[in-house]
Amino acid sequence: MIKVGILGGTGYTGGQLISLLINHPRVEIEWITSEKFKRKLITESFPQLKNILDIKCVSISQIKDLEEVDLVFSCLPNGTSQHFVKGFYSNGTKVIDLSSDFRVGDLDFYRNVLGFKHKLPQALNEAIYGLPEVFRNEIVNAKLVANPGCYATGVLLAIIPILKQKLVAFENIVVDIKSPISGIGRAPRLENHFSEVNQNVYLDHSVNFQKFEIEQKIKEFSKSRFGIVFLTHIVPVKRGIVATNYIKLKRKISFDKIYDLYKKFYSKESFVRLKEQGERIDLKSIVGSNYCDIGFNFQDDYLMVVSAIDNLIKGASGQAIQNMNIIFGFKEDEGINIVSYFP
Amino acid sequence: MIKVGILGGTGYTGGQLISLLINHPRVEIEWITSEKFKRKLITESFPQLKNILDIKCVSISQIKDLEEVDLVFSCLPNGTSQHFVKGFYSNGTKVIDLSSDFRVGDLDFYRNVLGFKHKLPQALNEAIYGLPEVFRNEIVNAKLVANPGCYATGVLLAIIPILKQKLVAFENIVVDIKSPISGIGRAPRLENHFSEVNQNVYLDHSVNFQKFEIEQKIKEFSKSRFGIVFLTHIVPVKRGIVATNYIKLKRKISFDKIYDLYKKFYSKESFVRLKEQGERIDLKSIVGSNYCDIGFNFQDDYLMVVSAIDNLIKGASGQAIQNMNIIFGFKEDEGINIVSYFP
Amino acid sequence: MIKVGILGGTGYTGGQLISLLINHPRVEIEWITSEKFKRKLITESFPQLKNILDIKCVSISQIKDLEEVDLVFSCLPNGTSQHFVKGFYSNGTKVIDLSSDFRVGDLDFYRNVLGFKHKLPQALNEAIYGLPEVFRNEIVNAKLVANPGCYATGVLLAIIPILKQKLVAFENIVVDIKSPISGIGRAPRLENHFSEVNQNVYLDHSVNFQKFEIEQKIKEFSKSRFGIVFLTHIVPVKRGIVATNYIKLKRKISFDKIYDLYKKFYSKESFVRLKEQGERIDLKSIVGSNYCDIGFNFQDDYLMVVSAIDNLIKGASGQAIQNMNIIFGFKEDEGINIVSYFP
Amino acid sequence: MIKVGILGGTGYTGGQLISLLINHPRVEIEWITSEKFKRKLITESFPQLKNILDIKCVSISQIKDLEEVDLVFSCLPNGTSQHFVKGFYSNGTKVIDLSSDFRVGDLDFYRNVLGFKHKLPQALNEAIYGLPEVFRNEIVNAKLVANPGCYATGVLLAIIPILKQKLVAFENIVVDIKSPISGIGRAPRLENHFSEVNQNVYLDHSVNFQKFEIEQKIKEFSKSRFGIVFLTHIVPVKRGIVATNYIKLKRKISFDKIYDLYKKFYSKESFVRLKEQGERIDLKSIVGSNYCDIGFNFQDDYLMVVSAIDNLIKGASGQAIQNMNIIFGFKEDEGINIVSYFP
Repeated sequence: MIKVGILGGTGYTGGQLISLLINHPRVEIEWITSEKFKRKLITESFPQLKNILDIKCVSISQIKDLEEVDLVFSCLPNGTSQHFVKGFYSNGTKVIDLSSDFRVGDLDFYRNVLGFKHKLPQALNEAIYGLPEVFRNEIVNAKLVANPGCYATGVLLAIIPILKQKLVAFENIVVDIKSPISGIGRAPRLENHFSEVNQNVYLDHSVNFQKFEIEQKIKEFSKSRFGIVFLTHIVPVKRGIVATNYIKLKRKISFDKIYDLYKKFYSKESFVRLKEQGERIDLKSIVGSNYCDIGFNFQDDYLMVVSAIDNLIKGASGQAIQNMNIIFGFKEDEGINIVSYFP
Repeated sequence: MIKVGILGGTGYTGGQLISLLINHPRVEIEWITSEKFKRKLITESFPQLKNILDIKCVSISQIKDLEEVDLVFSCLPNGTSQHFVKGFYSNGTKVIDLSSDFRVGDLDFYRNVLGFKHKLPQALNEAIYGLPEVFRNEIVNAKLVANPGCYATGVLLAIIPILKQKLVAFENIVVDIKSPISGIGRAPRLENHFSEVNQNVYLDHSVNFQKFEIEQKIKEFSKSRFGIVFLTHIVPVKRGIVATNYIKLKRKISFDKIYDLYKKFYSKESFVRLKEQGERIDLKSIVGSNYCDIGFNFQDDYLMVVSAIDNLIKGASGQAIQNMNIIFGFKEDEGINIVSYFP
Repeated sequence: MIKVGILGGTGYTGGQLISLLINHPRVEIEWITSEKFKRKLITESFPQLKNILDIKCVSISQIKDLEEVDLVFSCLPNGTSQHFVKGFYSNGTKVIDLSSDFRVGDLDFYRNVLGFKHKLPQALNEAIYGLPEVFRNEIVNAKLVANPGCYATGVLLAIIPILKQKLVAFENIVVDIKSPISGIGRAPRLENHFSEVNQNVYLDHSVNFQKFEIEQKIKEFSKSRFGIVFLTHIVPVKRGIVATNYIKLKRKISFDKIYDLYKKFYSKESFVRLKEQGERIDLKSIVGSNYCDIGFNFQDDYLMVVSAIDNLIKGASGQAIQNMNIIFGFKEDEGINIVSYFP
Repeated sequence: MIKVGILGGTGYTGGQLISLLINHPRVEIEWITSEKFKRKLITESFPQLKNILDIKCVSISQIKDLEEVDLVFSCLPNGTSQHFVKGFYSNGTKVIDLSSDFRVGDLDFYRNVLGFKHKLPQALNEAIYGLPEVFRNEIVNAKLVANPGCYATGVLLAIIPILKQKLVAFENIVVDIKSPISGIGRAPRLENHFSEVNQNVYLDHSVNFQKFEIEQKIKEFSKSRFGIVFLTHIVPVKRGIVATNYIKLKRKISFDKIYDLYKKFYSKESFVRLKEQGERIDLKSIVGSNYCDIGFNFQDDYLMVVSAIDNLIKGASGQAIQNMNIIFGFKEDEGINIVSYFP
């Protein structure tokens, strides 16, 4: 049984994390910070937790008085997270950070793209990118895990297996994202007002920074310089991302060859599922679960790899728990072997 | 051709009003006020109007300098509207007020229920309740029309025809409302956040004040004292109200008798449609139109009259234009003889 | 560890049952029947189960050759279920029937309301109505459980505690239901076509038969003869029922009195949650869980008790598992102590 | 005043056409065929038309006895339409065909892609592709208009202006479509069941045939051989298509240059609107209208042109009326100068 604390627990990522941890047999939630709900019951933010979790949120200003824990999850916003993670990191508490603050090992990224000066540059070198299917060996001993962005998770799992193959033409990969409303956060604004977004689809340029995260991880993994072209479309669903990746090949290739290549790459992974020929990628198969489903389509000399994940689970809190399980030696699917919501 | 001005034109009621007026052959929009979008193009609030209506919003603080118009529509909030309507009303400009500020001729209502002191009590006596199917004769010469509330419109059209009938048991009528998200306004808050309300249904107590409006109009019309019990449920649709009215009868009565009674009552009305036996009330038949559909159901000694209207059209801006048409002697359905959106 | 079989497992109720049983630590699914998917993998009907449950459906015509199990769940349609339940019931296998075929102990109901001749009248006397909060003692030893209808579950849990109280005026209780699309089944028809029902609300008369189930249980429990007036409105959500019950009282009563009365009645129940003053009933707090949330509102001399349940869980498969847990002596919340989906 | 007939009028395209024609001042609907609703009122299929259009549908088997009209719209399915269009075409009645049966002047397309033998090959040469912004001159004298597919309309309007420019790299254009549920028709199936598709996004391969229509029109217009890569994703909206077109350029280019190029190309068009820098493409600006909105994005050496249309209006029935207006010399926007639904 380990004790965990959650920084910034009353947004969607925090809420998902709490819901999953409640049923995790080896974890106890020790404290949750929230500025908006400080000194209030967590059920004021999440009424569904009534009779299930009756603890009060604390202010992050009390961070020094909080009970010691084995692991801190940070669900704080980009740029804010680094400040509050610092203390825990320094005193040796394990940290899994769900913001963008430690994902890219390049100070310029924070300054130029995210727009803030990084306060913990030395940690950038130590932070492990928490995509277990690719970096599991490093995660085992991580002190600080940079939990991947939701788009990056969907895109990387879809394209990583093919990147080292010679058959890819050296071009940009076109990445077209369909993103849910929960992806733009819980704070109310016109962009997530039901009457504005239901029956609507719109382009969202505010998340383009994940392009850099993806390109850097491509480079780290493949040692080559694929760029991506990246556009995100908000569609009126609450959860779930579809990432459609258009990859130009040097020559046509059969479904079976690609399928086998991916099958081999993911042979030991319990959270990646490959669609067979004729099976269709959709959100309903994965929403509510920690799965990443991947399917293959072919047209002319293009391979289109399409992936689907739940942005709040495999794209955030589920993957964070997967990382936690790896670090603490628990069964990797413990607490996250859940079946999709359906219908 | 008449000139109109719109006070508070960048919410949902204002937007609907503008869209309808644009295609009205006898009206020109002279000005639109908005504090949030002052000095900005109306298309910043409503991008769908691009290339269609390219005027700039003005601040209500310039109200004295605004060009004279034949008619002012006020889409300002309850309690605010009375202040700005005052000047127009005093100088003889016709006013159609879409707020609650002149609907109930009882100063206590404003003080105790809406929570403000009424500043124009003399106008309360002159204001005409703009439900054309019931008060058309008075509307013709109205200087100030109090445009009915959306719930009141749906409920009154459903129950008015039967109120003077002896067959109604003297009891409360139970009124159960299914209300759309646009009914709680355009300002973003958690209650209209897509991820909170899609796939959700919740009780909304903030609109209970329309109970008093309905009860007063029942009393004015029927000279009897039916009360209503009134609950509103927000359902995840953008527009459209279903009002289910449970009326206890003294004895059972046939569908045909009730149908004929309503048929006669509404024989000259172009915007009320009665469902025949076996026809089902739904929103899709009326959303986007100025119709009120009414259907009848029977169980034991209860009659259930169910009505459906578009809250922004027959429940607000369409009805306001209907009132305008009556006042200015236009054809009553001019500009509002529109077919429902479907699908 | 018990072995269970599922009759008719590829509709929504069956799918929910399978998803819950997969994570139940004391149950093994032995077989699932489906005519549409016979000899096909269950994942063809529910792709989300890929890599999780890889068994093939069998035809019900092979029912005699199926492996013996400790318990059979029937998710077959009304009128069909009795035929196939018969054999299991006769040979002593425990049966939990999710259809309407054993809920009402009155042969006329089946003939006149549901429209078929009952083939197993002797079982009607033995069947136990599976609403644990009311009939737990009888369920313990049940051979055949008639799992309650979804509307009946929501309505009965909301009104049962007050029925024996003298303060209720002897009148019909008005029951207004808001029902999800999954409530009308998985077979495609215009009534559940996305483009017809999204942004729509419509009256559904096809489910009125649950009025009789509710009235009979009221009578059995309270020995008095309250009738109900019952209308169902389909709203565009996938899951979740709100039942609004309007109860006329002999005199006004305080929130606290009502709250205490219900608190006492449900003091030992883990799946009923009472809303305190100011807390709002909504679907999002219960969808995906086995909870029934209950809230109280007051107007004039009316008490409005509003309840919310997930129709597929507490209103069907979750409650079926709750009954199974009781019969087999498992912990009552085993496998169903799940947190609501959110967002 | 012209008289029109509609073949196959009870699907979504037919319903939209009827709704628009009802308010068109120069058109009278003479007859509507429907096999499913023959001898029934059109209001049984579209209850929203009650009191508005009270005519009965006729069977297509009576096609020879139908009153003569000036123009026939065919909303029949692919492969069926050609059969019934034949007679009208032969006797000189103007025809606007909304199916795919005359869009591509290549018999192989029908045999190999659509899977049927074309019965009217001589008409393929005469049929005019009804995209007014590109082929207006030919439409004026058309006897038979092949109304463009919805995806083709969105894609072609987005890319046509740039195709003859030398700056485009000779590569495939990647076309990623977000398509509404109404795009897969009104016949109920699991793919359009609310509980399956709400909160879902899925790949749809059944519409890939429009790839060939698009590629042929590109070739006809530009005399060059751009291919496209084409994937369609069904998103849970009722109407509206977003087409995201990724175009690799030979070198970077400024927003202003592209904007000016399009501005010039569409300078006389009333139904194409260009988004300025910072304006965002969305469905809500165009749904319910005949507009095609076009926006521009840039990344590395890619230009992304994104277009949005209402699939049933500019993508089908609105465009059909636009073509009718051109043929009969009416004002081109008569009956289709409608403002988007909002909210």
